Amino acid sequence: MLYLIGLGLGWKDLSMKALEALSECQEVYLETYTSASDFTPLQLQKLLGKPIHQLDRKQTEEDLVFLEEADVKNVALLVYGDALAATTHQEILQLAKKRDIKVKVIHAPSVFTAVAETGLSLYRFGKVTSIPIPNENYKPESFFDVLLENQKINAHTLFLLDLKPNEGKFLTIGEAIKILLDINQKRNENIFTGETLVVGCARLGTSESTIKAASADELSNVDFGKPPFCLIVPAKLNHKEEEYLSK
Amino acid sequence: MLYLIGLGLGWKDLSMKALEALSECQEVYLETYTSASDFTPLQLQKLLGKPIHQLDRKQTEEDLVFLEEADVKNVALLVYGDALAATTHQEILQLAKKRDIKVKVIHAPSVFTAVAETGLSLYRFGKVTSIPIPNENYKPESFFDVLLENQKINAHTLFLLDLKPNEGKFLTIGEAIKILLDINQKRNENIFTGETLVVGCARLGTSESTIKAASADELSNVDFGKPPFCLIVPAKLNHKEEEYLSK
Repeated sequence: MLYLIGLGLGWKDLSMKALEALSECQEVYLETYTSASDFTPLQLQKLLGKPIHQLDRKQTEEDLVFLEEADVKNVALLVYGDALAATTHQEILQLAKKRDIKVKVIHAPSVFTAVAETGLSLYRFGKVTSIPIPNENYKPESFFDVLLENQKINAHTLFLLDLKPNEGKFLTIGEAIKILLDINQKRNENIFTGETLVVGCARLGTSESTIKAASADELSNVDFGKPPFCLIVPAKLNHKEEEYLSK
Repeated sequence: MLYLIGLGLGWKDLSMKALEALSECQEVYLETYTSASDFTPLQLQKLLGKPIHQLDRKQTEEDLVFLEEADVKNVALLVYGDALAATTHQEILQLAKKRDIKVKVIHAPSVFTAVAETGLSLYRFGKVTSIPIPNENYKPESFFDVLLENQKINAHTLFLLDLKPNEGKFLTIGEAIKILLDINQKRNENIFTGETLVVGCARLGTSESTIKAASADELSNVDFGKPPFCLIVPAKLNHKEEEYLSK
């Protein structure tokens, strides 16, 4: 049996159900390359009283040793956030089902709902998208198309900002704003300018969460501290949202 | 201090963080009119070892005794799903902040991410909306407009189906389909017909979750058992989604 278990957003977001499942697992893996939290793998290992094997991208997506093991024993794969919020983890579920390996998904708190802490209505969010860390050979723009689509139906856009914890790299809110401004200019759009109202969030759902609303230009210069980060470009605010964000 | 605590989707989704907070609370309230789960308030009371006061709509939204108490002692308000996924609960957070009452939000698993169990990509969902239980004087259609908007940007639509646990009423998936068919016909649209592919879900995130994909006509006749229910009208499926749903 494979237990696909969400760790949630912060320390001790693990559920009673997750702890019970973990107590029955012979092997515990932790996927460490798609996200991070306010605790270390070592702290988690102490909490569980079991050794935790950390998995990088290749081990999670290609080697799949944990999946083979799950055919003959109880194996837990721990992931940050909800168990299925990242495409990678949803694909593991699908792969396990294809191979007739039993899977139990244990859900956990996710940034998808924690963004409600901003005061923006969850029911007004459109498609969620990610902004990857760009490099010389990789400068995608598909997230900008999602912004255009969402604005078309007057929906808020949540951008999850990429991080590579294993390499100590993470996209800051200032960098994400710069990327959006550049694409806007390159495409001759008028949808994301220095005056656009944006909401920056760091460490949502933890005791150290930070939420700030301001123009893109102003927010670029704010230090949000440690990741994970997300950026929201709201649609036209309704009265309640405006009142709450103004604080 | 007010602790706004999510119970998650099923039994023992309560997190370690939530249990620690609850151990410090002098009063524990449970909001019982917006949703339900696979356990009873009595089971929860036994688990926590504390009396739980159940709140109906008036007590939660108007009387607000729990909020007054939170000014002088530690009070927990337990809600099904995530702590902030329902508009009502987000408004309580805003009200508490307005009155300068300290609030701590403790997130939990939500249907917003549990829908990933269907194999549909979370990043392809548009706005989420609810279908209320209609009556003689109340037949809203705004959820149909959300479907139209989402289809415009090729996004999946998640409909949460209303339930009134205190009155033993809940909208079934068959009833929701009938409502959507009727509005489609009345408006002379061609967006939701008997042939439209839909996905019905019951008790997502629990050990008894049921997911079925079929045409609207076929799904109308399926018995999904106990609530909560939701209905998804997918946008055009991508290859992976199609492959997964076909099983």
